[in-house]
Amino acid sequence: MLLLKLDAQSKEPIYRQIVRQIIDLVEGDTVKEGEALPPSRELAQRLSVSRFTVAQAYRELWAKGYVDSRPGSYTRVRKRPKLAAGTSARRYAEGELDSIYSASARALEDAKALATFPVGRTAAADVIDFTPLALDTRLFPVDELRTSFDRVLTQRHASLLNYADPAGYAPLREYVADRMRMHAVEAEPDEVLITHGSLQGLDLVTRLFVDPGRTVAVEQPTFPSVMPLFLVRGARLGAIPMTEGGMDLDALEALIREREGRADALSLIYSIPTFHNPNGISTSQPHRERLLALCEEHRVPLAEDSFQEEITYFGKAVLPIKSMDSRGLVFYLGSFSKVLFPGVRMGWVLARRDCIERLTLLKRVEDISCSPLMQAALHRFCESGAYELHLRRINRIFAKRMAAAMAALRLHLPAEKASFDEPSGGYLIWIRLRGMRRSEGEIQTALRRAGVAAAQGSLFFAQSPDPPSGEPPSGRSTRRGPASVERYLRLSISSLDIDEIEEGIRRLGGALAEL
Amino acid sequence: MLLLKLDAQSKEPIYRQIVRQIIDLVEGDTVKEGEALPPSRELAQRLSVSRFTVAQAYRELWAKGYVDSRPGSYTRVRKRPKLAAGTSARRYAEGELDSIYSASARALEDAKALATFPVGRTAAADVIDFTPLALDTRLFPVDELRTSFDRVLTQRHASLLNYADPAGYAPLREYVADRMRMHAVEAEPDEVLITHGSLQGLDLVTRLFVDPGRTVAVEQPTFPSVMPLFLVRGARLGAIPMTEGGMDLDALEALIREREGRADALSLIYSIPTFHNPNGISTSQPHRERLLALCEEHRVPLAEDSFQEEITYFGKAVLPIKSMDSRGLVFYLGSFSKVLFPGVRMGWVLARRDCIERLTLLKRVEDISCSPLMQAALHRFCESGAYELHLRRINRIFAKRMAAAMAALRLHLPAEKASFDEPSGGYLIWIRLRGMRRSEGEIQTALRRAGVAAAQGSLFFAQSPDPPSGEPPSGRSTRRGPASVERYLRLSISSLDIDEIEEGIRRLGGALAEL
Repeated sequence: MLLLKLDAQSKEPIYRQIVRQIIDLVEGDTVKEGEALPPSRELAQRLSVSRFTVAQAYRELWAKGYVDSRPGSYTRVRKRPKLAAGTSARRYAEGELDSIYSASARALEDAKALATFPVGRTAAADVIDFTPLALDTRLFPVDELRTSFDRVLTQRHASLLNYADPAGYAPLREYVADRMRMHAVEAEPDEVLITHGSLQGLDLVTRLFVDPGRTVAVEQPTFPSVMPLFLVRGARLGAIPMTEGGMDLDALEALIREREGRADALSLIYSIPTFHNPNGISTSQPHRERLLALCEEHRVPLAEDSFQEEITYFGKAVLPIKSMDSRGLVFYLGSFSKVLFPGVRMGWVLARRDCIERLTLLKRVEDISCSPLMQAALHRFCESGAYELHLRRINRIFAKRMAAAMAALRLHLPAEKASFDEPSGGYLIWIRLRGMRRSEGEIQTALRRAGVAAAQGSLFFAQSPDPPSGEPPSGRSTRRGPASVERYLRLSISSLDIDEIEEGIRRLGGALAEL
Repeated sequence: MLLLKLDAQSKEPIYRQIVRQIIDLVEGDTVKEGEALPPSRELAQRLSVSRFTVAQAYRELWAKGYVDSRPGSYTRVRKRPKLAAGTSARRYAEGELDSIYSASARALEDAKALATFPVGRTAAADVIDFTPLALDTRLFPVDELRTSFDRVLTQRHASLLNYADPAGYAPLREYVADRMRMHAVEAEPDEVLITHGSLQGLDLVTRLFVDPGRTVAVEQPTFPSVMPLFLVRGARLGAIPMTEGGMDLDALEALIREREGRADALSLIYSIPTFHNPNGISTSQPHRERLLALCEEHRVPLAEDSFQEEITYFGKAVLPIKSMDSRGLVFYLGSFSKVLFPGVRMGWVLARRDCIERLTLLKRVEDISCSPLMQAALHRFCESGAYELHLRRINRIFAKRMAAAMAALRLHLPAEKASFDEPSGGYLIWIRLRGMRRSEGEIQTALRRAGVAAAQGSLFFAQSPDPPSGEPPSGRSTRRGPASVERYLRLSISSLDIDEIEEGIRRLGGALAEL
């Protein structure tokens, strides 16, 4: 005899209540295997519900494997194997799978702080936020993009309706190759691979060259998101300090020579030579030549991250290292995310053809291809001239915004406490706080109180600029960050207008003066 | 004295010709370091070109680092480090980097045949092509999708304009969780991760659990693209034969026990329990229960690939294994690619919350997030009811198409030579050729001649059903494929209408009869 209690007031549908209670009875062994459930008509009458409701419950019990049901026979409780399962109630504790996670998943847990670096706006609405490195949403060419999607979908463009070439939508690859030629890089469409942002491009290049235990050289400071990317591959970080002119090439050369032939030999160099993140530096032609010469001499591939290459509002920039690369050791990483909006998630790798073939295979295995629809719309947007127009517009705007930021910094920043360099492009300003005694937490609190936010410098180092007392964590870094008396702030002006920049810097200067 | 020869007929711009020739002179040491180039006015006169053209060439030489130029002084050839670089001419041979590729990149090269399995249509236009597993383009709800993009972009939806939550667009996660409840899976939005197709979901799950050297169990035959995915992670494939009822669970259990505690212990089981690719089988409730019980007993996670779960035109399907999973060992992989078009490249993983957090971190490190724009448009499409309508429509249509395919197969297939099972849903039919003496190449040729194409069976095995004489390749497979006298063809009806299906099967039957 089934004892069921139905609650007509419950949000849970009646048939679900029946299912749940019968499962509990079976699981609790009150109803035994092989026992017949009452005919649906009988149970319906007893419970004062419709026969349909009971039939629905029985169907679900059948689908869940609790009962057997054949036409003309009773509905009987089935023999089930011993499963932890049973009711839908979850019977697991958080973290109980920890012991079966892979080594790389565990490595990532260690690097969680780096991996969860905020990419979007996080500050309260009344705070002027210099943190996000994403274009001012007010400048997005949304209408032009809408038109592009509309056109592409109206024409039912054949290439978006099917699986696509894993290397990317052919016209977009061609467009990228053409643009690269404007940066003096000789490029053919089949030397371009379209990726989900430049980060996926870097991930693929890493997978092409870096075996677990090998070293990847990274500038210190650098773009935080790349460090966990290397760590989950099992790579060691070779932290190379930045000098005023860029990556310290003596240190790099010493690292290469020290590890040559060893199990932790250098397998990849990651560099941001133009408008560096976070410190805004663009390296000189001689610096680029020597870096490339080192790569050639030691046959080490170079990932050249050029995510802000086109934000060149102060005139001519130095050419990409890729433009000098006749050996095919440079892997140029480009992105549409900083000119257009981050949401397109589209970037590219430019590299020698045989490597692009390999990278394409790696990408195909991972996710088949980027969305052909998104690529076709982006291509339509670019080809219509909207990209070029938008680029000129934001360069015009940011020339003014950066000039305003520099003027405001000179006016409001207490010179004895803080210094900065003038970037030649891009959105970033790196502020060095001299002889600062306050902790980063204290500085952040002071800024927040003043109604302004900026990224704290330690985020950009593999290891905090003030390591805790004792040994640095093993295997994570070969060098230490800057001396512990120096602190940094990264200001991104990408999402702020001139008024906001000026007011924000005024607040920043006030807060720093009081620290 | 510079000797330059310009060709006014050449497609290469004049200034580029000047640049190229001067670089050649410098590289060839005809023009020495420190030497001054002629003033631009003088060179222009001598070459009968405008001074502007020469100035442009000199600027490019400067940008490329070949000359120094200061106001009021001559343009002098710079000292450059010894670089292989120089002219834009590439000086590398294909393949010369092979020795510095990572182990996983080399593993992929070995698995290239699997990784390059064609995803789209490859046959000539007059061939009826049963190869592509992608929905008939004529059925795509393109207009509804265009409307969705238009709406989302018109409203300048805030969440698409910025960096997005790496776990996915919140309303889309909620929609997916709701849909999963329709399949009797209790799911909360924070148990859902949005991925670039279900393949990226599988890649992330693999990274979460599988260390190099460990074993991943795969059905044989299986979806070809997953095998290289496991191999590039350094995993070993544990090939489990399929019986008529699905994966051979005795073989699976034997494999688990044999390797338990060893370096090649089983770390993941990959299975397609519903409308299997390639053989169309859906496993029974008892089969699912035993598989889950094995996972629980041995604490092995299960990747349940349910890419065709919603193509259930023949009525009620068995519920997903995930619906019984109270231990949190099942990782449900879903996809929009087979209902909508492949080009959206959107799928999801449904799993226990703490694992979703880990998987999200892995995804974030790799590519930050899926495009919020694409996700917002897809969500708008779903929420408007267009997804549900479209799903019902294609289920109505494919019930008829599959019935027509079955009728045509019974009519045209020579029963003594070929057999097949009736699938209960999905797009796939798996044909077993009995006692076939012809090679797969010969069969393909015969089909092509008859104007029809289908995927050859060996593509779906880690190892060819007829291994070459001698030992099988080491470490790739623990079991052999089916006996060498059996050959298979996979027919996908997803992109064909009834007339095409009937005519295609007529041609297929004719071709097989003659073999």
